[in-house]
Amino acid sequence: MKIESLKNERVKKWCHLKDKKERDKTGTFLVEGSHLVTEAKKRGLVVEIITLENRQESRIPTYIVTKEIMKKITDQVSPPTIAAVCKKMDSTLEPGPTLCLDEIQDPGNLGTIIRSAVAFGFKNIILSEHTVDVYNPKVIRSTEGMLFHVAIMRRDLKEFLTEIHSEYLIFGTDVRGGIKPEESHVPPQYALIIGSEGQGMRPEIRTFCDKFLYIPMSPLCESLNAGVSASILMYELAKRQDYE
Amino acid sequence: MKIESLKNERVKKWCHLKDKKERDKTGTFLVEGSHLVTEAKKRGLVVEIITLENRQESRIPTYIVTKEIMKKITDQVSPPTIAAVCKKMDSTLEPGPTLCLDEIQDPGNLGTIIRSAVAFGFKNIILSEHTVDVYNPKVIRSTEGMLFHVAIMRRDLKEFLTEIHSEYLIFGTDVRGGIKPEESHVPPQYALIIGSEGQGMRPEIRTFCDKFLYIPMSPLCESLNAGVSASILMYELAKRQDYE
Repeated sequence: MKIESLKNERVKKWCHLKDKKERDKTGTFLVEGSHLVTEAKKRGLVVEIITLENRQESRIPTYIVTKEIMKKITDQVSPPTIAAVCKKMDSTLEPGPTLCLDEIQDPGNLGTIIRSAVAFGFKNIILSEHTVDVYNPKVIRSTEGMLFHVAIMRRDLKEFLTEIHSEYLIFGTDVRGGIKPEESHVPPQYALIIGSEGQGMRPEIRTFCDKFLYIPMSPLCESLNAGVSASILMYELAKRQDYE
Repeated sequence: MKIESLKNERVKKWCHLKDKKERDKTGTFLVEGSHLVTEAKKRGLVVEIITLENRQESRIPTYIVTKEIMKKITDQVSPPTIAAVCKKMDSTLEPGPTLCLDEIQDPGNLGTIIRSAVAFGFKNIILSEHTVDVYNPKVIRSTEGMLFHVAIMRRDLKEFLTEIHSEYLIFGTDVRGGIKPEESHVPPQYALIIGSEGQGMRPEIRTFCDKFLYIPMSPLCESLNAGVSASILMYELAKRQDYE
């Protein structure tokens, strides 16, 4: 089906997916670019394809749109040639390393962290109540497709940690009282908690930690970017995991 | 001096500092927020202060502006209470670890890399000809003030590497042929080259490398964010430097 008007109802509906409220209401989100569309298709998540080119997809409803429409939907100066409406994923906890994010705010940081989590073999990512929405377009872009390779769940973090703390070794971070990652043994079941950009971990979350880690650094620098510190810690823990 | 009109000539001049051309022409750039203004003052770089509050700075010309003007200058939804026009830094090569960036494009990545470079004790950052401008407002914001703690120079990278390669051990990255960072000794004088986000190192830059490093990762993930991989490599090299 061809759509050429910016005022078309379907175009308006796609544009509304930029808002979290609309994504929550419809249970859908938008991915942009052929790499992400392919990954989403593999997972069976694609419900509508939006494309600049006249090609026929087997069973998925496909809409051919103008470049202007694609620009409006994606907010990109150079719009992709393809995008897709996907249904949200339904994930359950997998055995293995688990990352808990306590109120991460920046979409770019969340995307980068998801990408690194997959790179370093993490199986689950738990997002606390006020962590930025994983279906935010900026988050999706910066994951580079990796959000489809890890179980991502939004949970009350206190409740989640209460459930797992007898079976998991729980790592937090502490610039002052922490140990270096190489000073800890790492069991197969563990969780790493990363605090928010400005505030760090909330005090009620800190109490669940069995061990605190820190990354040695120059006194000139107060802290690293949240995506960088999360990535370095995941890299170190993955490197020294005791496989049974 | 008070300024209340958005059409004031000085306001226009400050707005133009968002453009690289204007920054190059005037040899100045803008920093935002009290943390960055304080850091720039310590380095003696501040030439004009722009503030929302009526306070007197000893010798530096100070302009009191409206919130609307501050918004316009900084493009921020929540504008800072203070900003400053600074003169560009004049840096020379310091002894010690040196980071070379080969055509890094994303401002956020460059800012993050500068922040991590200071954290891990790097003394110099060499930007290749087409690496994004370090005085770009987004770069400056993501350095979190760290750009004032390291010598940053823009150079023809081929020329620079020709000059240093007899005295420095030069590390590059290679996902296929590289060794793990822990498999290499690290002398006090070394350089690490990081390639661009999409393309990696240019072939003519690769030829200067004495050793290639890689970061072990899951086959599910093709690559890490450039800021993350640069940071992990700097962290690892800093950790195992042989101090003489």
